[in-house]
Amino acid sequence: MDSTAFQAIEGRRRVAIENVQPAVDCGLFAIKRTVGETVTVTADVFADGHDVVTAVLLHRPQGTDGWQEVPMTPLGNDRWRGEFQVDQIGRHEYTVGAWVDAFESWHRDLKKRIDVGQDVAIDLRIGAALVEGAAPSASGNDARLLRDWQQRLEGPQGLVAYQAGVAKLDQLMRRYPDRRFATECDPPYVVVVDREKARFSTWYELFPRSCAGDATRHGTFRDCIEWLPRLADMGFDVLYLPPIHPIGNTFRKGKNNNVECMPDDVGSPWAIGAKEGGHKAIHPRLGTLDDLHALVAAARERGIDVALDIGFQCSPDHPYVNEHPEWFRKRPDGTIQYAENPPKKYQDIYPFDFETSDWKALWRELTDIFLHWAAQGIRIFRVDNPHTKAFGFWEYCIGEVKARYPDTIFLSEAFTRPKVMYRLAKLGFTQSYTYFTWRDTKAELTEYFTELTQTGVREFFRPNLWPNTPDILPEHLQVGGRGAFVSRLVLAATLSSNYGIYGPPFETLENLPREAGNEEYLNSEKYQLRAWDFGRGDNLGTLIATVNRARRENPALQSNASLRFHRTDNERIICYSKRSDDDGNLIVVVVSLNYHHMEQGFIELPLGEWGIATGQPYQVTDLLGGQTFTWQGAHNFVELDPRKLPAHIFRVTQA
Amino acid sequence: MDSTAFQAIEGRRRVAIENVQPAVDCGLFAIKRTVGETVTVTADVFADGHDVVTAVLLHRPQGTDGWQEVPMTPLGNDRWRGEFQVDQIGRHEYTVGAWVDAFESWHRDLKKRIDVGQDVAIDLRIGAALVEGAAPSASGNDARLLRDWQQRLEGPQGLVAYQAGVAKLDQLMRRYPDRRFATECDPPYVVVVDREKARFSTWYELFPRSCAGDATRHGTFRDCIEWLPRLADMGFDVLYLPPIHPIGNTFRKGKNNNVECMPDDVGSPWAIGAKEGGHKAIHPRLGTLDDLHALVAAARERGIDVALDIGFQCSPDHPYVNEHPEWFRKRPDGTIQYAENPPKKYQDIYPFDFETSDWKALWRELTDIFLHWAAQGIRIFRVDNPHTKAFGFWEYCIGEVKARYPDTIFLSEAFTRPKVMYRLAKLGFTQSYTYFTWRDTKAELTEYFTELTQTGVREFFRPNLWPNTPDILPEHLQVGGRGAFVSRLVLAATLSSNYGIYGPPFETLENLPREAGNEEYLNSEKYQLRAWDFGRGDNLGTLIATVNRARRENPALQSNASLRFHRTDNERIICYSKRSDDDGNLIVVVVSLNYHHMEQGFIELPLGEWGIATGQPYQVTDLLGGQTFTWQGAHNFVELDPRKLPAHIFRVTQA
Repeated sequence: MDSTAFQAIEGRRRVAIENVQPAVDCGLFAIKRTVGETVTVTADVFADGHDVVTAVLLHRPQGTDGWQEVPMTPLGNDRWRGEFQVDQIGRHEYTVGAWVDAFESWHRDLKKRIDVGQDVAIDLRIGAALVEGAAPSASGNDARLLRDWQQRLEGPQGLVAYQAGVAKLDQLMRRYPDRRFATECDPPYVVVVDREKARFSTWYELFPRSCAGDATRHGTFRDCIEWLPRLADMGFDVLYLPPIHPIGNTFRKGKNNNVECMPDDVGSPWAIGAKEGGHKAIHPRLGTLDDLHALVAAARERGIDVALDIGFQCSPDHPYVNEHPEWFRKRPDGTIQYAENPPKKYQDIYPFDFETSDWKALWRELTDIFLHWAAQGIRIFRVDNPHTKAFGFWEYCIGEVKARYPDTIFLSEAFTRPKVMYRLAKLGFTQSYTYFTWRDTKAELTEYFTELTQTGVREFFRPNLWPNTPDILPEHLQVGGRGAFVSRLVLAATLSSNYGIYGPPFETLENLPREAGNEEYLNSEKYQLRAWDFGRGDNLGTLIATVNRARRENPALQSNASLRFHRTDNERIICYSKRSDDDGNLIVVVVSLNYHHMEQGFIELPLGEWGIATGQPYQVTDLLGGQTFTWQGAHNFVELDPRKLPAHIFRVTQA
Repeated sequence: MDSTAFQAIEGRRRVAIENVQPAVDCGLFAIKRTVGETVTVTADVFADGHDVVTAVLLHRPQGTDGWQEVPMTPLGNDRWRGEFQVDQIGRHEYTVGAWVDAFESWHRDLKKRIDVGQDVAIDLRIGAALVEGAAPSASGNDARLLRDWQQRLEGPQGLVAYQAGVAKLDQLMRRYPDRRFATECDPPYVVVVDREKARFSTWYELFPRSCAGDATRHGTFRDCIEWLPRLADMGFDVLYLPPIHPIGNTFRKGKNNNVECMPDDVGSPWAIGAKEGGHKAIHPRLGTLDDLHALVAAARERGIDVALDIGFQCSPDHPYVNEHPEWFRKRPDGTIQYAENPPKKYQDIYPFDFETSDWKALWRELTDIFLHWAAQGIRIFRVDNPHTKAFGFWEYCIGEVKARYPDTIFLSEAFTRPKVMYRLAKLGFTQSYTYFTWRDTKAELTEYFTELTQTGVREFFRPNLWPNTPDILPEHLQVGGRGAFVSRLVLAATLSSNYGIYGPPFETLENLPREAGNEEYLNSEKYQLRAWDFGRGDNLGTLIATVNRARRENPALQSNASLRFHRTDNERIICYSKRSDDDGNLIVVVVSLNYHHMEQGFIELPLGEWGIATGQPYQVTDLLGGQTFTWQGAHNFVELDPRKLPAHIFRVTQA
């Protein structure tokens, strides 16, 4: 700092503010909350010397002037804490301000002087000067009171007056602190506030073309409307549809991903674009835009959002290929570079070239696809493979869309390396797919969900758990029978407040892979129409409805911050709890990870943390099975049978 | 980011760089190193998709153009690592750059295609185009080689040519990567590089006025020169003098801090300033500027730096009081506000008012005091109570001084709250006083030194340990006898590569406090002249020389990063080691914390980490006692007697 730097600084700012939390990557990215949630901010705040410091938490909707202010309180060791509630969707800012408080310092020291009987005549005059300094900031009655106090402290009875009115004087002066030399963290930190469904949502994925109830007839949006009552009854509030656009013909894949395609094969919805249109068009056999509007409206009546799948890739027949050849990479033979995972080739798919010199136009057009559907009333997007598109694009795109439609939710379908998945969440994705689908053991689940919910990751990454997807029929569902389906359902629905199922095959316990050692479904809906029979006796519909009711009725299951794992003496039994601070709602979940045989064991609950005294009985009601037990003490016996019910969702209440 | 923001970004930069370490407060403050040390940098580096990424570590002296470049290597999980050596005093910058490497990606994929026997004719032409793209960056032979390669890859024997010369082609192309869309962390991080004494220094504090060997005669710098051979023999390389300025008369304190002052009382050197001058003047009875120059020169000949104490406070007689009354706070009665710790008053001391509207002039003048003494050849300053001066001032002041005298060392004498002490180190102090003086137990010492040496603190905070100071005769030295002095000396000298003693009373085992329960020395040199007798039989001089020789001869003891504590089965015995990577020098220290009685116990050494096989004998040589033992196995018996030698400094060598 050379002498000219003096121009830029105010040397009398004496307070240092460090380590403001929460913050993602030093404030480079926003933290996330939903409407009604609290942001608890801590920071190190201190000044040189021994003067009294005052700190405040400042917050405001981004783009507005002036700050709302909350006092912070010291926690010891120069750490301070304050909190505010976010009650409006959009981007909010927060920061910390602090200053050396001359009046409070004077006040503290005067007390010590009086206590030892020192002559404080001059000190009272110092106080009078501080009061005088505050007066110009006040008006009305306060201004009059301050002038009175100044005279009283200066007068011959200053000490008597001070001692008689110290509390009132202090209260008065706290309203007019001298903040000329306050320090303020700049730039402020950002919190993106989403609607509640960003935090608590229950997804059902289906292929609308299989909604006709007849595998020989292409289903439509209108058919899909017929499904809504059942989905609502089961407690789902997001209906997620794979891409609804026209499907390419060139290199179209046949049933079971066959490179030979029959004339009546419907193709993969992810081979996007044909002569009928691209990412802004609707597959003619699904219906019209009016039909989509009808589906969206009917769903909304039942509290269900329709979520669209946006996959940024093109079939060779996509209009972009002719209209914007510069958005694709060209091979030396003049053809367009198809997708590859060498040596595998996916000739039915053209990826966009994010290194095109025309990247600005590409970014605008891709963003415009979201804006197009948002204008049709869609507010949830599941984004296919975002990790194969440029990071910078997502920050731009999500920012643009949320600037216009702040209630939009983006789900990142990135099954890739952890830091890439986290980066996408930092850049703006509202929710994210996870490794849950492949996390099988107690140790794996404990470690992974501790990282997601108990570290800084929880400030920006909202997990959305899927026991299955159209791409993934995990091995445990192939071989684990109904027990596996139930355990995985309960885990997904209780470990995370956001979860979903690829519904029809999950409900009906479909477990056949295309081939052994493969996670693809046999006769996958990705490549053919299916008809589903929900009439089987062991259908999971009733259980799913019960699980989702437990989620809806228990605030503890509607967020993840309180998740804690508890000791069990059996490695095949996992036990954890969630608790809601506001209302004391407390849920204990016990799940068997043995899908074939009965498991027994003791779980150990942290009763002390929950305010349950040793020896005091408490009640646990199984929201799945319906029974209520009276327990006493931390250690309790459980028995879980995959042939009956391999999981408990206990609500704990004091007897 | 709205559309206009497109102007500011390059959307084709696809690599993300996160979590660059080391960094202090997200790069807000510099890390510290000394000349010849290594900076090992790690970072998360990754791109979207599956392309190959290349990362480099960039570094340069601050203010120079262009970067020196070091390749980084992947550690797994997208973490990368690189390192560089700092070989020049001053401020250096470092950052991380990375890019998607199209050629390396092509190279990797081509191998997979060839492995399965795919037709790669077009792929070879893609490679040829990449080689063609690199050619304009090359010149001479490389340019010719690149043109040759382009033709070969395009030609009919492209695959044969590729397979025959792949290693050479790769080597060639690595010299010309396409970095148009490279990402670079900006702003860069800063490392302050100090001279070696910043890391490894051995301080001796004395009052030059007590150097006459006669308590009735005021000592001088010339007397002080006579002490140098003894100090050099004992192995000290910093001679630290309390303030050398004229001492105030008004409210001067008498012997033992008596408010009554006798006519011949010399006063406290920290009551700075009299009619003879202030912070830039020398106390006339100590000598002249020439005498100081003579002392500095004589010390330098023996490798000793003279360190001055700079205390920013004034006696009422300081010339500043009349010349710059605006730099002090005025009381309502027109007098100047003296120092206070209510209800205590220190009327002999006027603090500066860092909230003065004239703060710019004050900052300049105080900085000029350091510049004044630096111009006299002083390069080490021990700063008195820096925590009672504005933080911003220190950042400015140290920056200005080091810009002109980059080899300057500032020691922060801040005994205050931890975050304040750390802040001062972040702002630029080279070394810092610590809580060592009061850390007594094994648990306390282990916890504290683990924090100082094994966390992020070590990047900016260099501890300097003092068993005693003129202000602190800790209780254990009052009551612990010689054993306490030896144990505390060995702890200070081996836990930290920087340490010091307030020499004369420490050497002579002075242990009488002014009064019980007080840490002040009886007949403290702060208020009176003393004469010291180093002829006593139990004088610590020889032991101190032995300890300092061990430090000088063992690189392991010259830094702190390798400090590790080891298990002992006796809470009164502490054991730790330091190891020097470069030469394998390995030191194990064992110290008794029982100053009165013998202690025995087993220590447990991590032989595996040191590459000593189980069952292999190794030698330990006690650098204090002189004996050599042959040990075998991790557990070894020690016996420490405070009446003989309550500590070992073992050098470990493989037998």
